[in-house]
Amino acid sequence: MTRPRNDTFLRALLREPTEYTPIWLMRQAGRYLPEYCETRKRAGSFLQLCKNPAMACEVTLQPLARYDLDAAILFSDILTVPDAMGLGLYFTEGEGPRFERPLREEWAIRDLTAPDPYEHLRYVMDGVCEIRRALDNSVPLIGFSGSPYTLACYMVEGASSSDYRRIKTMIYERPDLMHRILAVTTDAVIAYINAQIESGAQAVMIFDSWGGGLSAAAYPEFSLQYMQRIVAGLIKEKDGERIPSIVFTKGGGLWLEAIAAIGCDAVGLDWTIDIGEARRRVGEQVALQGNLDPCVLFASPERIALEAKKVLDSYHRQGGSDSSHVFNLGHGISQFTPPEHVTALVETVHDYSKILHKSI
Amino acid sequence: MTRPRNDTFLRALLREPTEYTPIWLMRQAGRYLPEYCETRKRAGSFLQLCKNPAMACEVTLQPLARYDLDAAILFSDILTVPDAMGLGLYFTEGEGPRFERPLREEWAIRDLTAPDPYEHLRYVMDGVCEIRRALDNSVPLIGFSGSPYTLACYMVEGASSSDYRRIKTMIYERPDLMHRILAVTTDAVIAYINAQIESGAQAVMIFDSWGGGLSAAAYPEFSLQYMQRIVAGLIKEKDGERIPSIVFTKGGGLWLEAIAAIGCDAVGLDWTIDIGEARRRVGEQVALQGNLDPCVLFASPERIALEAKKVLDSYHRQGGSDSSHVFNLGHGISQFTPPEHVTALVETVHDYSKILHKSI
Repeated sequence: MTRPRNDTFLRALLREPTEYTPIWLMRQAGRYLPEYCETRKRAGSFLQLCKNPAMACEVTLQPLARYDLDAAILFSDILTVPDAMGLGLYFTEGEGPRFERPLREEWAIRDLTAPDPYEHLRYVMDGVCEIRRALDNSVPLIGFSGSPYTLACYMVEGASSSDYRRIKTMIYERPDLMHRILAVTTDAVIAYINAQIESGAQAVMIFDSWGGGLSAAAYPEFSLQYMQRIVAGLIKEKDGERIPSIVFTKGGGLWLEAIAAIGCDAVGLDWTIDIGEARRRVGEQVALQGNLDPCVLFASPERIALEAKKVLDSYHRQGGSDSSHVFNLGHGISQFTPPEHVTALVETVHDYSKILHKSI
Repeated sequence: MTRPRNDTFLRALLREPTEYTPIWLMRQAGRYLPEYCETRKRAGSFLQLCKNPAMACEVTLQPLARYDLDAAILFSDILTVPDAMGLGLYFTEGEGPRFERPLREEWAIRDLTAPDPYEHLRYVMDGVCEIRRALDNSVPLIGFSGSPYTLACYMVEGASSSDYRRIKTMIYERPDLMHRILAVTTDAVIAYINAQIESGAQAVMIFDSWGGGLSAAAYPEFSLQYMQRIVAGLIKEKDGERIPSIVFTKGGGLWLEAIAAIGCDAVGLDWTIDIGEARRRVGEQVALQGNLDPCVLFASPERIALEAKKVLDSYHRQGGSDSSHVFNLGHGISQFTPPEHVTALVETVHDYSKILHKSI
């Protein structure tokens, strides 16, 4: 494997020199793009879109056709893993994901097993292969998974939740059952991400969307330690190239030092932490990814440029190399984002960061 | 005014010696209590309950009849203030609060004025007087308000929001309009809380429920500076007794030092920060209130006792005085809490903290 022609994203993650700050956007293939909505409509449903490798490939590439992004990310959903574990994923209009068989009974938890990704998640691996072919080594492809705790939230609650009442009750009342779910899910995630790497993913990201809702004491025990196990279990190198990993706990700003210490190459940041402050706290041991408030994209292109520069400036002011920063939003892009506003963001990040990189 | 017979809560806020750690619970008069549900049913609706001083008094006292709590908190809703500003508050079953006339137009924002609390919020002041009479100087009464930013979220969005798209757009695109709303709301809140103090509130709390969703740069500008103005504008003493103030930004753990520096007597903490760590960061300049995960109350009484002790131990381990801690949940008590579990919590906090206080 040779590196893609534009390998700026990979270099930033590995803290190698870059000429500018690379950018991609969480959920960059999404509903804010009319072409995405059209493909999704053609697919019939969100889930059918996820399960169709050709269409998943099509939507993965859509944002790259519009914008000068430095990475592609596999189009899929984090809940395909619990679906493959037999929980029966389905989507209801306007209510988000649901499971037919949420994990509520002790026997079901004892029976839980990690699925073979090449069998039960074949469509994801087919998608990865197809996307890599279509990308033709232009930019790197990011593979991903939800964190065990985040997946467990959906598996136990059976749907999105506003209070995480069921999973929290399990954490406090039956930590043994909770750890059983998390251990099996960790095995599933390791096999799943490694299969993505074998199929062609050139960097990987773990999304811990709900870990930030845990108490300070529960986070390391029920979320972080399992992400650490995942990072330790991942394929580190493929065809002589390092496969960098990014770990992102939304709302995890208080625990940054602990996250940076689990062996990952980069830490994702939401917008509640100043990125310069984050860099000061973790030093040069990891790259940082983030962290513009996605709502900035609702403002005018001029304001977007201003706010993007603030993020770049804050990182730069901490001194040292600017080459360990991957620009991103602090959360997935909103479906209400005007597509032309993304152009302003990408151009500002590229142009302005070139100036900062030269000024070191 | 003389202090209530049980003034432990006030003493903890003022960092005076106490024999044990006082406890009250955010939303302690709420739906988890069957007697509350009965009164609410009799009132006809939540809003009618808020607007009826006799019934508001009745539900305020209900948790005190059941549990050995160290403070009462006025039963009301933070949105009575924007309602008094003419936005037309109403509640829809299962969907939460809504405003008939959300703030969307520039002219409406320019026309916004702070209401006279004795005129437009008379029912709140009547409630405060009635509760004070009914409490008969047993425990202190807490008055409260939402923070300007939190109130503005509802005023601009018109309802609860999952992404705060409208208010964030205003922050980034029209900060001048946002500041206008926040300035008028700040005046309204100062007058409102001071009227509560004049009517008999013996401590006050500002609830910044949504400030934690702001970026690191936006929080001081759009939430914290207005809470600072409020604290500066509050009546500090009544009849020779200091009226302590508590400021609580949910999700504000990253900004603790800044919050502790605005002149308030105490800072509220959610459950994502270790309270010992919080104490280490802010030192002895303020009291701290918090911070058990409300979901702990779903577990068994034995587990509840264990988790409550962890919070007390963590605070205690930082050394110095244990007398500057007010025990609370990190967020409002859930409607699904078994009422008898609260007994276990209150007893543990009182009994165990007495031992810790003696061991200094």
